[in-house]
Amino acid sequence: MNQRENNITLAHGSGGRAMHRLIAEVFRSRLSNPILLQGDDAAELTLEAGRLAFTTDSYVVRPLFFPGGDIGRLAVCGTVNDLAMKGARPLYLVASFIIGEGLMMDILERVVDSMAQAAAEAGVSIVSGDTKVVEHSACDGLFVTTAGIGRIEAGWTVSGSNVRPGDVIIVSGTVGDHGMAVMNARGDFGLGGEMASDAAPLWDLVAPMLNCGGVRALRDPTRGGLATTLNELAEQSKVRIVVEEECVPVRDWVRAGAEMLGLDPLYLANEGKLVAVVEAERADDILKVMRANQKGREAAVIGRAEAGEPGVILRTSIGSHRPLLMLEGEHLPRIC
Amino acid sequence: MNQRENNITLAHGSGGRAMHRLIAEVFRSRLSNPILLQGDDAAELTLEAGRLAFTTDSYVVRPLFFPGGDIGRLAVCGTVNDLAMKGARPLYLVASFIIGEGLMMDILERVVDSMAQAAAEAGVSIVSGDTKVVEHSACDGLFVTTAGIGRIEAGWTVSGSNVRPGDVIIVSGTVGDHGMAVMNARGDFGLGGEMASDAAPLWDLVAPMLNCGGVRALRDPTRGGLATTLNELAEQSKVRIVVEEECVPVRDWVRAGAEMLGLDPLYLANEGKLVAVVEAERADDILKVMRANQKGREAAVIGRAEAGEPGVILRTSIGSHRPLLMLEGEHLPRIC
Repeated sequence: MNQRENNITLAHGSGGRAMHRLIAEVFRSRLSNPILLQGDDAAELTLEAGRLAFTTDSYVVRPLFFPGGDIGRLAVCGTVNDLAMKGARPLYLVASFIIGEGLMMDILERVVDSMAQAAAEAGVSIVSGDTKVVEHSACDGLFVTTAGIGRIEAGWTVSGSNVRPGDVIIVSGTVGDHGMAVMNARGDFGLGGEMASDAAPLWDLVAPMLNCGGVRALRDPTRGGLATTLNELAEQSKVRIVVEEECVPVRDWVRAGAEMLGLDPLYLANEGKLVAVVEAERADDILKVMRANQKGREAAVIGRAEAGEPGVILRTSIGSHRPLLMLEGEHLPRIC
Repeated sequence: MNQRENNITLAHGSGGRAMHRLIAEVFRSRLSNPILLQGDDAAELTLEAGRLAFTTDSYVVRPLFFPGGDIGRLAVCGTVNDLAMKGARPLYLVASFIIGEGLMMDILERVVDSMAQAAAEAGVSIVSGDTKVVEHSACDGLFVTTAGIGRIEAGWTVSGSNVRPGDVIIVSGTVGDHGMAVMNARGDFGLGGEMASDAAPLWDLVAPMLNCGGVRALRDPTRGGLATTLNELAEQSKVRIVVEEECVPVRDWVRAGAEMLGLDPLYLANEGKLVAVVEAERADDILKVMRANQKGREAAVIGRAEAGEPGVILRTSIGSHRPLLMLEGEHLPRIC
């Protein structure tokens, strides 16, 4: 910038000169790709005919930075993963920023750097965007909204409504890492050095699973955690899901933090994990390709779908059964 | 809802039970379409091969409701218009809501009703969405972000970088209506009963213009107004644009309000107007089809592109010339 500006001002959202400088010097330079550089209000893409997935999410996480990620990484991974969970190869994202006046410019730059890195990891381009600035009293820092489109390859049909009795439930790794890492970043509970969010783009894990055949449903257990996601699947497909508690992988620091805070890891958010519901006879092959990827190394079968009243039943390590309900209320606001 | 809730709470953004109720009862019921009802985290669409436009904008306007529109209508029209300005028929939108805790439920319902109506007017479907709730201190009500995709018909290439010397500049109607209507809604300046935002979807105005041929560039002059948009076109295409001040249509109440507030209508935001740059020999035909549509009834030629130093020159009614610069600073925060 002509004179280096250290903070975002309302002028950066005006549509005028300051906004054009911000776009050129903070966004376009970091996210650079030929489509973004077209410079019109909408990006032009060329696509083959076929089935597309289209999705959006807003990200309001606090703090903006935490071990293992930040709001920018979440904003890319979360939307990429929503596409992947529909069996779609993520292709293009757009990103919209609502910034509280006074945000330090280098914080915004770090967020955009992180988005650029996550987009490269995920193999997507960020092709268009928008910036609004509001008074500090109206936004305590930064909200990021992304939308994405992806291509669903011929023959793949993955939906939360496809689960059938007899199907096997797989989780791709430990649950609760993201939720507990963000909680710890808010008020250090001393959970140790390995503590980090799992935020990661998952298409490279999903594609070989789909190639195995037999994948009925995929869902990333973000807000509300594994328990809520399983309830969504049970309701959408009208099945009962039985989960073996001791089969659900949970890291020691997540378990310790959850006990300290009176939380259940099964309700903690994940940002780099998936739940897959697969045909029983394909489960072994699918587990094998999952475990060949670092992101699925700890993949585990955690339960089965059954005919019966829609809902989720948890079988505990001592053999008792209890209903595992969808999250009620809100215990961890602004976790993503 | 089981017990009717009058206000949004953090639980409505939890991912859990309350959020599922909100989605079903406020969003899905109002925006209903077969794709939205798929119920997965991403919507599945089927598209023909070809060129697509993809765009996003966040909307942070205050107040949420104003004569002629509201944040929901803007969130649909603004994104639809960004697609139309790329020569793309708007097809599908996704919408993401960041809600301040405590927002009255019926305000949210009115906004979603308005989005449904605007989407119907524009011929688009809202196919997926997201809801986040933050503490009231972090968002003073409601922010809406939409993203949209549209199809660019074969043969149409419209870009802000296509303007050439000799081209004619057309504006589709009066400028400043939206900016002044929102300003008046903030602090009633007594501008009279006809005062209203122009917020409207513009594809039905654009399609016949494109069918005429000779449309080089389209842009909707939102934040920063006509003056800023013309500067963008001049910079992107490296041309000089000369505007005849007295040819720019401005309503009396906009002129009166702008004088009272010390503002220039050429910098006031518009949400239902477009600037078209067209080949000189096609200008008459294009004006004719524009005027046949209510949204273009007052369309006027306001200037020309010339070779020369990139920039915009205003020729005033007394024949003097002055540079018309891009907006500097910010005089109307949160106008859209």
